[in-house]
Amino acid sequence: MRTPSIILLTIILFSSNLLANKDIEWKIALNWKSTLTPLSSPSFQIANMVKQMSEGKFIIKIDGLEKYDSSANMITQIQENEYQMVHTNSSALKEKDINTIWFTGIPLGMTMKEQYSWFYYGDGQKYMSNIYAKFNLLAFPAGDLGTQMSGWSKKEIKSISDFHGLQINTQGITSEILSMHKVILKDLPTSQINNAFLEGKLDMISGTSPSMDIKMGYHKIAPFYYTSWDKPASQTQFIVNKTAFENLPYQYKKILTTAIKLASYDLYYENFYESLQAWDKIKTDFPNIQIKSLPKEVLISLSKSKKLIFEQYSKENKLFKEIYNNQQQFIKKARRWSQLEEFSYIKSINNLDK
Amino acid sequence: MRTPSIILLTIILFSSNLLANKDIEWKIALNWKSTLTPLSSPSFQIANMVKQMSEGKFIIKIDGLEKYDSSANMITQIQENEYQMVHTNSSALKEKDINTIWFTGIPLGMTMKEQYSWFYYGDGQKYMSNIYAKFNLLAFPAGDLGTQMSGWSKKEIKSISDFHGLQINTQGITSEILSMHKVILKDLPTSQINNAFLEGKLDMISGTSPSMDIKMGYHKIAPFYYTSWDKPASQTQFIVNKTAFENLPYQYKKILTTAIKLASYDLYYENFYESLQAWDKIKTDFPNIQIKSLPKEVLISLSKSKKLIFEQYSKENKLFKEIYNNQQQFIKKARRWSQLEEFSYIKSINNLDK
Repeated sequence: MRTPSIILLTIILFSSNLLANKDIEWKIALNWKSTLTPLSSPSFQIANMVKQMSEGKFIIKIDGLEKYDSSANMITQIQENEYQMVHTNSSALKEKDINTIWFTGIPLGMTMKEQYSWFYYGDGQKYMSNIYAKFNLLAFPAGDLGTQMSGWSKKEIKSISDFHGLQINTQGITSEILSMHKVILKDLPTSQINNAFLEGKLDMISGTSPSMDIKMGYHKIAPFYYTSWDKPASQTQFIVNKTAFENLPYQYKKILTTAIKLASYDLYYENFYESLQAWDKIKTDFPNIQIKSLPKEVLISLSKSKKLIFEQYSKENKLFKEIYNNQQQFIKKARRWSQLEEFSYIKSINNLDK
Repeated sequence: MRTPSIILLTIILFSSNLLANKDIEWKIALNWKSTLTPLSSPSFQIANMVKQMSEGKFIIKIDGLEKYDSSANMITQIQENEYQMVHTNSSALKEKDINTIWFTGIPLGMTMKEQYSWFYYGDGQKYMSNIYAKFNLLAFPAGDLGTQMSGWSKKEIKSISDFHGLQINTQGITSEILSMHKVILKDLPTSQINNAFLEGKLDMISGTSPSMDIKMGYHKIAPFYYTSWDKPASQTQFIVNKTAFENLPYQYKKILTTAIKLASYDLYYENFYESLQAWDKIKTDFPNIQIKSLPKEVLISLSKSKKLIFEQYSKENKLFKEIYNNQQQFIKKARRWSQLEEFSYIKSINNLDK
């Protein structure tokens, strides 16, 4: 009778081992400091959710920029599995592939709402997956800050020629557009850029949301806060090692992607909340700050420059042309609804109490 | 040697039973048909996510209005565990507790973005939990349709007196406001209301989004499509049996609440996508439809009426007064940021190509 019970025992042990998922540990690198909320929040939220939903078996650790060496090749690091995920802007990989820019936000392009709709219900997700598959990587939306303020300026921009000779920090496509209008681009590390502006060595500095701008102190020295033409959406991405992901048990794949998508959505509302508080504080402490939008004629010039740049990229890169057309077609329909929905409400009910 | 192996076997069987969560089946009732997308989508998404993340052990079934008897007492049904969850508007429970209205959307109140920020980062969640705890229920946001169109009208509203004698269908607080301006409220079941409007027996009908309005066919007979003053946000809720929730294993609680929050966020973008397509189709097929916003003077009158109503409720109900003040304080700061963010972008870059 001993042998059958040992066989039975072996069967039970074996099947319980098959049923129970094994312990797994992943590491996320952040392309910013781990203290820079709300940008750093999604990773911590994901680690927390994944742990809870896997009964403590799937653990994710996080290295912010204070530990993670961002001068290393980000793609190689993920491919070589030093980290399984990195939280960054897709457009930071522009030098590797120009088509990574489409998922962060495009000057004079889609708003966050339009971009999420395009991504999940239009063709966005398909394009992003195909582009990252070339590197054996996956990519997921990782949180959109919404429409970002264009930035802080010491000078008012009244015509396009006011950009000539202006000392400014911008990146990516925005830099290419402004270069056509003779700005002087300052390409310094972030910390030095901030100090340069605060010390009066720059005329204009790119903004984000009041939530993060307030920490920089720009409002203490610049009278003009410009609304967006350059950052109508600001989506970030998680870039993920595809092989590591595919090796996860089915259940953990679902737990991880659910947590990523949820933490991504949450980021917007955390940023909205922190921004409304920060903007209230800035306005109270510095009542003379003026909100400005670029004049129509200036925006028309910038729009023409963008088109020239995008037409050039379209000639050089077939996929660029395809995604550009795809987004433009989408915006054409989407903007008509964007002009009605929240927009028409805020517009029509303004100042009812006065 | 036989006894120890049996003991060992018992220990293993017992601990594997402790480790493995048991099979659970829940039922969701929908307060609308299961085919009415995008409103019905979150429940199906949740059922799918929960199944995948629990390895098929936590199963959720769904009864839409074609099967679920909505004439029964919704709260009692949940309390008595006939269903563990219902997907509805919180404000549908207004007769049970006036303070359930705060979480759906308030005429001339918060937008979706403002409301989510208030809910998750301000005091909203605390208030909703306390209100539903009185009934031994839990409540969760279950998807916001965003700013909804006010509705379709055969007549143009040029002054507040144009509402006098207008035959109209509205519900809740909007009805109370419009009643002060002598509209004739038609309180018929949804299907009859729709036919009454299509047959010319109503002057105005409450709208939602183009995604759902297009299915009703209102655009075929009404020339005016009014933008919102009454539905700046349209959040739905899952009302959940608290005891059933508390009896779930810890892991399943986390899986369920994560799935609910994610499906809730997704609903907005599904609706945005369907609405931009539907609005494009309506405009193409019926190019003469005119978008209208109520004139400023009319909105000021409606705003005054709302205040009178809300002041009266505030006198009768201490908690109403507290939440009203809390929301008003929040809106004061939040609206300043709402007027900048997406709004200023859409406003300033309109018609750059012309």
